[in-house]
Amino acid sequence: MLQRRTDLALEAREIWQSGAKRAAHLPGVTSEQTNREGYPVTTVRITDGEGAQALGKPIGTYITVELPGLKRREEDAFPRAVRAVATELRSLLPEGDGSVLVVGLGNRAITPDNIGPAAVGHTLVTRHLVAQIPEHFGHFRPVAALAAGVLAGTGMESSELVQAVVEQTSPSCVIAIDALASRSLSRVCSTVQLADSGISPGSGVGNHRAALDRKTLGVPVIALGVPTVVDVATLCADVLAEAGRGDLEPETLRGAAAGMMVTPRDIDQSVADLSKVIGYAVSLALQRDLSIEDLELLLA
Amino acid sequence: MLQRRTDLALEAREIWQSGAKRAAHLPGVTSEQTNREGYPVTTVRITDGEGAQALGKPIGTYITVELPGLKRREEDAFPRAVRAVATELRSLLPEGDGSVLVVGLGNRAITPDNIGPAAVGHTLVTRHLVAQIPEHFGHFRPVAALAAGVLAGTGMESSELVQAVVEQTSPSCVIAIDALASRSLSRVCSTVQLADSGISPGSGVGNHRAALDRKTLGVPVIALGVPTVVDVATLCADVLAEAGRGDLEPETLRGAAAGMMVTPRDIDQSVADLSKVIGYAVSLALQRDLSIEDLELLLA
Amino acid sequence: MLQRRTDLALEAREIWQSGAKRAAHLPGVTSEQTNREGYPVTTVRITDGEGAQALGKPIGTYITVELPGLKRREEDAFPRAVRAVATELRSLLPEGDGSVLVVGLGNRAITPDNIGPAAVGHTLVTRHLVAQIPEHFGHFRPVAALAAGVLAGTGMESSELVQAVVEQTSPSCVIAIDALASRSLSRVCSTVQLADSGISPGSGVGNHRAALDRKTLGVPVIALGVPTVVDVATLCADVLAEAGRGDLEPETLRGAAAGMMVTPRDIDQSVADLSKVIGYAVSLALQRDLSIEDLELLLA
Amino acid sequence: MLQRRTDLALEAREIWQSGAKRAAHLPGVTSEQTNREGYPVTTVRITDGEGAQALGKPIGTYITVELPGLKRREEDAFPRAVRAVATELRSLLPEGDGSVLVVGLGNRAITPDNIGPAAVGHTLVTRHLVAQIPEHFGHFRPVAALAAGVLAGTGMESSELVQAVVEQTSPSCVIAIDALASRSLSRVCSTVQLADSGISPGSGVGNHRAALDRKTLGVPVIALGVPTVVDVATLCADVLAEAGRGDLEPETLRGAAAGMMVTPRDIDQSVADLSKVIGYAVSLALQRDLSIEDLELLLA
Repeated sequence: MLQRRTDLALEAREIWQSGAKRAAHLPGVTSEQTNREGYPVTTVRITDGEGAQALGKPIGTYITVELPGLKRREEDAFPRAVRAVATELRSLLPEGDGSVLVVGLGNRAITPDNIGPAAVGHTLVTRHLVAQIPEHFGHFRPVAALAAGVLAGTGMESSELVQAVVEQTSPSCVIAIDALASRSLSRVCSTVQLADSGISPGSGVGNHRAALDRKTLGVPVIALGVPTVVDVATLCADVLAEAGRGDLEPETLRGAAAGMMVTPRDIDQSVADLSKVIGYAVSLALQRDLSIEDLELLLA
Repeated sequence: MLQRRTDLALEAREIWQSGAKRAAHLPGVTSEQTNREGYPVTTVRITDGEGAQALGKPIGTYITVELPGLKRREEDAFPRAVRAVATELRSLLPEGDGSVLVVGLGNRAITPDNIGPAAVGHTLVTRHLVAQIPEHFGHFRPVAALAAGVLAGTGMESSELVQAVVEQTSPSCVIAIDALASRSLSRVCSTVQLADSGISPGSGVGNHRAALDRKTLGVPVIALGVPTVVDVATLCADVLAEAGRGDLEPETLRGAAAGMMVTPRDIDQSVADLSKVIGYAVSLALQRDLSIEDLELLLA
Repeated sequence: MLQRRTDLALEAREIWQSGAKRAAHLPGVTSEQTNREGYPVTTVRITDGEGAQALGKPIGTYITVELPGLKRREEDAFPRAVRAVATELRSLLPEGDGSVLVVGLGNRAITPDNIGPAAVGHTLVTRHLVAQIPEHFGHFRPVAALAAGVLAGTGMESSELVQAVVEQTSPSCVIAIDALASRSLSRVCSTVQLADSGISPGSGVGNHRAALDRKTLGVPVIALGVPTVVDVATLCADVLAEAGRGDLEPETLRGAAAGMMVTPRDIDQSVADLSKVIGYAVSLALQRDLSIEDLELLLA
Repeated sequence: MLQRRTDLALEAREIWQSGAKRAAHLPGVTSEQTNREGYPVTTVRITDGEGAQALGKPIGTYITVELPGLKRREEDAFPRAVRAVATELRSLLPEGDGSVLVVGLGNRAITPDNIGPAAVGHTLVTRHLVAQIPEHFGHFRPVAALAAGVLAGTGMESSELVQAVVEQTSPSCVIAIDALASRSLSRVCSTVQLADSGISPGSGVGNHRAALDRKTLGVPVIALGVPTVVDVATLCADVLAEAGRGDLEPETLRGAAAGMMVTPRDIDQSVADLSKVIGYAVSLALQRDLSIEDLELLLA
């Protein structure tokens, strides 16, 4: 039913609502707006199969934190963004202090797809310290990390590799970081989506991935995603609409734009900035006694 | 008059011709199609002010080599591309064996803008060898090279820096390599344009540059450019037209797409491949006794 | 017994032989010199426990290919080196065409330790192609690859990660690529050692690794190593000896040089060159119908 | 006279003093120890030709700031180091607020030689902003920057390139950042030397450079250097001496160690850390109203 390609539940709901003949109320979906550290937060909950089908996403909680100030490099924008994302992430994490596996999905060699691997580089990894020097690090939560690479580089599906590591190390949950596609120019590189339903196939910058969720991995999977590209066909439809030039279905334009992607001009800097926000937020959410200043020292 | 943004003279001419009320003949412009090493070559000559105004480019010769096989990694595609570009470049170089300054324009940190600096890394630099070890290298043509960086990184305009080096080293000509914008998805990252009119302000991936031409530098300036991005507004107009959905002027869409760029998904690999073609072609054109195999050894 | 730190069986044997009171014949060890593609090849076979104890290495075959021409960039040095290493590697591989896992050990962020991960980047990975497009790729041998990262980056021992992937993908053998330490300045970055005994703990640039061998992984493990550093204490003893200034045991100098390493000045270029030799040689050894030219096309 | 290779005036003086037959007082040289932000600071002043000859360095002021806490990542070590180096730099800068050219010498592709180019990347460059948007940036001191690359990459001597830019842009002084060689393992990557005598030929990681000083450039040249390598021959002599095994002149060992260098194992991280200290310190010294926090925002 969904015709415009987006990985954001927020946008899927907007599209549904913008349909001319839709009722105001979408059954099986609730939405709520709040504010965290000065940033707008939208929580979309898909509560049953009807909602899931309408939005094309699995049942679960989808939290979107919008970070427009980050791009403008407003004062304190970085620490506020880290705290905002960390707080929302904590609300989705399962109870307890069990070990966690952080997975960065995506292809390092494609800039907008590198956000997952880059975020892993900003994540405090502690599993080996806790095990080997418990007298000093026993109070840390054990965190392992994996930049899963891409199929072409390893000959393995990311999901195969993650599954192997989950079986070997038995974490209490997995946090999977990935690049997403948005349908809105204004959300690209200034939004983070957190979801407790894991990663579904077929989305993001890469075209086809196997699922990473509780069903395939046997433990809860929290997905953290950042939209870094806009689909070209979607963009054209949007630019047209915004310019008052009609309302086209992106699908009718798809063939003409195959193999292209739309990114901000400053995509390299944006991916660098956002991967640091994500890595720090994950570390802050998992290690409760640390401050951002501690992380600067430990991760520099 | 030109409404669709392109740096290719070839495309400027196509656009002019596609205008409904245009006569078949464009005064002050000639165009000719040939074939080099299996690749289509189009030479557009702007011979007077009328032609210059119609196409929005200075008087000069603009040679476009189209390299579709390179992206598909056809056999021999690389050496044929190097020889084709080298041969066309030789036709534009001034007589003689004077020293040459190769300048790579563009910002390393923006992938599609990095083609100039990356090509400089694949160029055989000999000036110091000729001067210091003349008994072994005296038969080489002296070549110096400069990756000009960007304004923000140096506090100097690229043109200021190039001018300073030209004054210091007095080359017989300058070869300037730069990223361009195309209006056609199919030409992005599969086309090289060579021009004997230098680099004009206001084009390419970066928005505003001072001219690098015989007037500003005092020596002939050959420009080598590769389109690596498509303007979003242009793209939308084209995708629409291709899908049979009308004919819009890109300018009417411009505001909605500011700050975005359209690139191939494999832009990193494409820039790597093309910068090697350019650097090798420049080296081959300047050093007549060398083969591509020699360059592989000398530049590896 | 061994006092000078080396990972090369060749050097361990030399050291043993240089001992003043040693007999000419070392029981449990045979050594043979041949020539492959113009490069000297030494094969040391440790055949029993006595030999293993004398040389401080497990029972097995250790083949050293010396590649001095590579550094001088002699003509054909690269393809000859690839073919020489590939031929020696084939002699160690188990029979059959079963799938293979290639593992690059070492820390990307320390240049001389990056040879394993970099070699993986030059290895033809086919497992996913064989599985998904068997009509076109069914004749390739399935190869998966893993750059194992370091303990600090993942929170997992390399051996844990490799073990997990071996269990998940059941390869017929593992090829493990790693940086080594040599005691000789002249062998650093110009030697490759192949061994069928796997990787032992405690060697290389990093200080402490768990074993990767048939015992821990359950399948044969072929080790490919390149010495990229010299131990500082070893170096001092050698420089002294070479200058005719006495004969010291490196251990007596160790404390004064902790945390330092000795590398060639051109270590970055050397690691780039050698990792390509290794990756290509592994690919050539595993895929019998491919040429180096095919690899250039497939891996560029 | 100097037999042990060092670029640090501090060490040259120590070596002079350690000579058995030297008088306690070295004519033409004064030395003074203070403390800045908790770090030891030694100022060696060479006041006449006799002192210059004794230490093998031009007449001038040489300030060494030792930063051992930086490597141990002590709390506040970074901001204290930035402020300490900035304060010492200010004491060497000429009066006034004229424009400044910051030059990063060294070869990006050799890790320990990359400190100059990397420091330029952490320097606030303002010249273009002051010129183009004076209403907002008119109160900044104009700073231009140049990563001078290496001879092999450009075909120009660094000094030629710097001279060309100085002539074009007429700065009031030049700050030149370079990698140095130390004779002491303990000073490598934990020391910064500032000197008002410019850069002399023949030192550092690279072997031979033309001078950058007031004589060649026509303006004052402040040199900022960080020792990142130890000469192998020097190291051997030192390790021997420290182990109580005699006192050799490094020159007698030189031939045996040609082409090698000794660096810390964590050289990549150290160069990253120190280049940030230098770039920030230069920016802080030149722009008096800025704080380190401002720089984090402006340079991130």
